[in-house]
Amino acid sequence: MKLTIKRTSLLQELQTVQRAISSKTTIPILTGVKIVLADEGLYLTGSNADISIESFLTKEDEKAKMTIFKTGSIVLQARFLGEILRKLPEDIVTMEVLENNQISIVSGKADFIVNGQDAENYPHLPVIDTKNQMEIPVHLLTKIINETGFAVSMHESRPILTGVHFILSEQKLLAVATDSHRLSQRIIPIEQMVENFDIVIPGKSLQELSRSFVNEEEQVEISIMENQVLFKTKNMYFYSRLLEGNYPDTNRLIPATFNTEVEFYGPKLLSAIERASLLSHEGRNNIVRLSISPDSVILYGNSPEIGKVEESLNYEHITGDTLDISFNPDYMKDALRAFGEMNITIKFISPIRPFTLEPTEADVNFVQLITPVRTN
Amino acid sequence: MKLTIKRTSLLQELQTVQRAISSKTTIPILTGVKIVLADEGLYLTGSNADISIESFLTKEDEKAKMTIFKTGSIVLQARFLGEILRKLPEDIVTMEVLENNQISIVSGKADFIVNGQDAENYPHLPVIDTKNQMEIPVHLLTKIINETGFAVSMHESRPILTGVHFILSEQKLLAVATDSHRLSQRIIPIEQMVENFDIVIPGKSLQELSRSFVNEEEQVEISIMENQVLFKTKNMYFYSRLLEGNYPDTNRLIPATFNTEVEFYGPKLLSAIERASLLSHEGRNNIVRLSISPDSVILYGNSPEIGKVEESLNYEHITGDTLDISFNPDYMKDALRAFGEMNITIKFISPIRPFTLEPTEADVNFVQLITPVRTN
Repeated sequence: MKLTIKRTSLLQELQTVQRAISSKTTIPILTGVKIVLADEGLYLTGSNADISIESFLTKEDEKAKMTIFKTGSIVLQARFLGEILRKLPEDIVTMEVLENNQISIVSGKADFIVNGQDAENYPHLPVIDTKNQMEIPVHLLTKIINETGFAVSMHESRPILTGVHFILSEQKLLAVATDSHRLSQRIIPIEQMVENFDIVIPGKSLQELSRSFVNEEEQVEISIMENQVLFKTKNMYFYSRLLEGNYPDTNRLIPATFNTEVEFYGPKLLSAIERASLLSHEGRNNIVRLSISPDSVILYGNSPEIGKVEESLNYEHITGDTLDISFNPDYMKDALRAFGEMNITIKFISPIRPFTLEPTEADVNFVQLITPVRTN
Repeated sequence: MKLTIKRTSLLQELQTVQRAISSKTTIPILTGVKIVLADEGLYLTGSNADISIESFLTKEDEKAKMTIFKTGSIVLQARFLGEILRKLPEDIVTMEVLENNQISIVSGKADFIVNGQDAENYPHLPVIDTKNQMEIPVHLLTKIINETGFAVSMHESRPILTGVHFILSEQKLLAVATDSHRLSQRIIPIEQMVENFDIVIPGKSLQELSRSFVNEEEQVEISIMENQVLFKTKNMYFYSRLLEGNYPDTNRLIPATFNTEVEFYGPKLLSAIERASLLSHEGRNNIVRLSISPDSVILYGNSPEIGKVEESLNYEHITGDTLDISFNPDYMKDALRAFGEMNITIKFISPIRPFTLEPTEADVNFVQLITPVRTN
């Protein structure tokens, strides 16, 4: 293997696959990046127990200034290769595999000889049947991940809840996540005719996936196998394992009738919750209280040792009964951040029943649920 | 105490004194900031065992939009006050001390009541005799700190070496620091007639001091007492304790005659050292080797398990004997960063004797010393 390439282009590819590379793995070769130089361009692969990422840089990419002298392959320590590429003196680097799986990395007068490993020893990635593929825009997938991923459980006591549940049926894709204290569910219509599926993808994989996309305007192809899912863009294959087990039936959790409804402008409510949580975070019980009457909504935060805060909130509309309800402000903050800049309606049943948050405009099928805290 | 003030102006003052406030102190009141509102403006004070900072915001400062309704004082949790100020809904905040050392903090519709402490219980700052004052520009003091502070010892085994030694005598200010492996010494001429001094200021205090200055063009007044030093600018009093004990005589450590001299452009040498240290950092002995002959200078880094690097260096001049010398590249990096963008001359005696680095242009009195590593 021998090539010359612009070092910043190679570094960028390396950073993409490094999302899948951990220095803490128990399989030593997985701390490395697999580099394969083929006639059509350069493939890099990084992998851990949960995800694998393969990136491809075509020789047609003029910015990368790639010249291929001899195809071949090697595995190099990923972190160390990155440090070398960052510090090289010139724009262009020449890399050549020598005997004994060593590689020469030359740029200007700097001449590195680095020990690598035989690429034959690198584990094979799963082969995924690419017949049943669904295609959606990257920006839409990223949005769904941001709208649901934060609500997955962080605890391994119920592993299935650490993932996001995706169900494709009746031309609709449903994504839902819950940690049993709050829930977030998003549904989008799907026009393609593809086979239905019902899978649970680890929340951490989805987080890395959404960070790995470079072009929001691209399409991403989703292929599903027994225990793997593949997300495929023009220059990246992103594999994740699936979680095994039955995801709880969340549909019956979302109530249909309510007694009190208040409409807010999301970002304004978020700022007020952030202020009130300054106090609640200092106390033992991280709760704030919302007091709704026909002509006012007042938010209270209290921590006896530190102080208290009280704020009369700006709202758009109130309908229904008066209500006093307490909840964990951090769940509310996460929920409001997921909505972003829009008007939302919060619907309550009683101080002890979960309440929902939805966009006021009915054109988006997105609902969140938060369980209140009983205070007496 | 009652005032209105622009919250970002108050936050900026708070951030200055917060450099002296630790949440880990054993004296609870020192986690607070002392706030004193006087007829002329607002004083904030933060303090820990090593440094105390007092900032002053004059009511004449139009940007701060300060209105003083009633003078007074209080001590508030510094971190918590900062969080509140950052999150308030409006530009202007009204603060009023209530009964029982509580304070009301109001901005827009948000109304905080926060528990404080009586300012009478806050420790008094040392009173410093301001007769014997030296004055130098802030940018010059900052430069001296950057040129010497990095060389102090990080180990408490010889506490005196954790400080920078400042000596004023014969119209010259000498600053020197050493951790016994390397040394950095800077001398500047002083024109004022002030009493000579010989003090050791903790390196950490100097680091905080250089970060606390906001205006490089100002003058700073330096006053010295038995065990304290005060740095005074228009809006800030910065106190530091002095280190007790005798600083070793470093003057005799700097050699006067040499056998090999090489001139480099500092930043180019620094880049090459950074590359070579990528390899040495992976190995057990963090050393690189420089091989100087009449017509080449070659730098080697080696870590048998990982690989090796070799780079022929660009230099300006070589005079004297051939030499092979090994050293810790991290000391060299620190030294070269302190010189910045200039040509420097490195002067060697032998592979086992300390070598010096100096600016090639003789107009700056700045010398650094590094002890080599014996390799056989």
